[in-house]
Amino acid sequence: MRQKFKYYWEDFSVGVVREFGQRKITEQEIVEFAREYDPQRFHISQDEAEQTIFKGLIASGWQTCSIMMRMMCDDFLLDSSSMGSPGLENLKWHKPVRPNDVLSLRTEVLEARAMKSKPDTGLVHLLWQCKNQEGEVVTSMQGWMMFLKRDSQPSS
Amino acid sequence: MRQKFKYYWEDFSVGVVREFGQRKITEQEIVEFAREYDPQRFHISQDEAEQTIFKGLIASGWQTCSIMMRMMCDDFLLDSSSMGSPGLENLKWHKPVRPNDVLSLRTEVLEARAMKSKPDTGLVHLLWQCKNQEGEVVTSMQGWMMFLKRDSQPSS
Repeated sequence: MRQKFKYYWEDFSVGVVREFGQRKITEQEIVEFAREYDPQRFHISQDEAEQTIFKGLIASGWQTCSIMMRMMCDDFLLDSSSMGSPGLENLKWHKPVRPNDVLSLRTEVLEARAMKSKPDTGLVHLLWQCKNQEGEVVTSMQGWMMFLKRDSQPSS
Repeated sequence: MRQKFKYYWEDFSVGVVREFGQRKITEQEIVEFAREYDPQRFHISQDEAEQTIFKGLIASGWQTCSIMMRMMCDDFLLDSSSMGSPGLENLKWHKPVRPNDVLSLRTEVLEARAMKSKPDTGLVHLLWQCKNQEGEVVTSMQGWMMFLKRDSQPSS
């Protein structure tokens, strides 16, 4: 018996916009992530970062993407028929993310189509825009996501 | 006085290939990352993952990207004049990454050009390909990176 979800492929039609998330990122989180995955000097040390063009500590771009992912999970993805993602395009780190920035996410469905190779699954092309507390877009991308169709579920 | 590095923009000419890294990813690392950033069922629980199309636990794609970043840091980036990245294109998660996979990285310079807006800085367009222990490409992308030029450094 298949699991039931709130959101299926049919719920992501073109033009659907969601705005959500309110996530403060701390200096400690930035440094901990960077020590593990991206220990460039502008990500791990306030003092060293001040000597760079960034004039202070900034988050690894991969951490910003990971936080965007978490906000999406919390908003709808964990209650969806998500089957993962084959990839994404046009990932842009427009502006640095700094300690105590408060991040939120806006998503917009750009395209939705069936998958020929998997009749029970559909693709959704989603624009992700991460904003800071000033409303500035700090990171954006266009990702492809796969969802099971609602009508692929058994009726009981 | 500016810091001295081993690698500057001039060291990334078109066609330069590097192959490096040998990083085993454990089940514990996969689950810990996913609990924080991407708690979809196929990333956090072996039992639940077995019920999905993935037939077992797989790493969050963001964790694979983050591990690729760390391998690049350890190989050359921490000893370079890196000034960060404006973004990337064509990120593809070709195959799942599973517990105990051993990841390595291949990079190839696709393009290198000066930045008009910053005369002391150059852009490098780099293909990243992450492989598993079978030599299969699991993740690839084409990233833009900024590096200071060597001749922008003071001579003493």
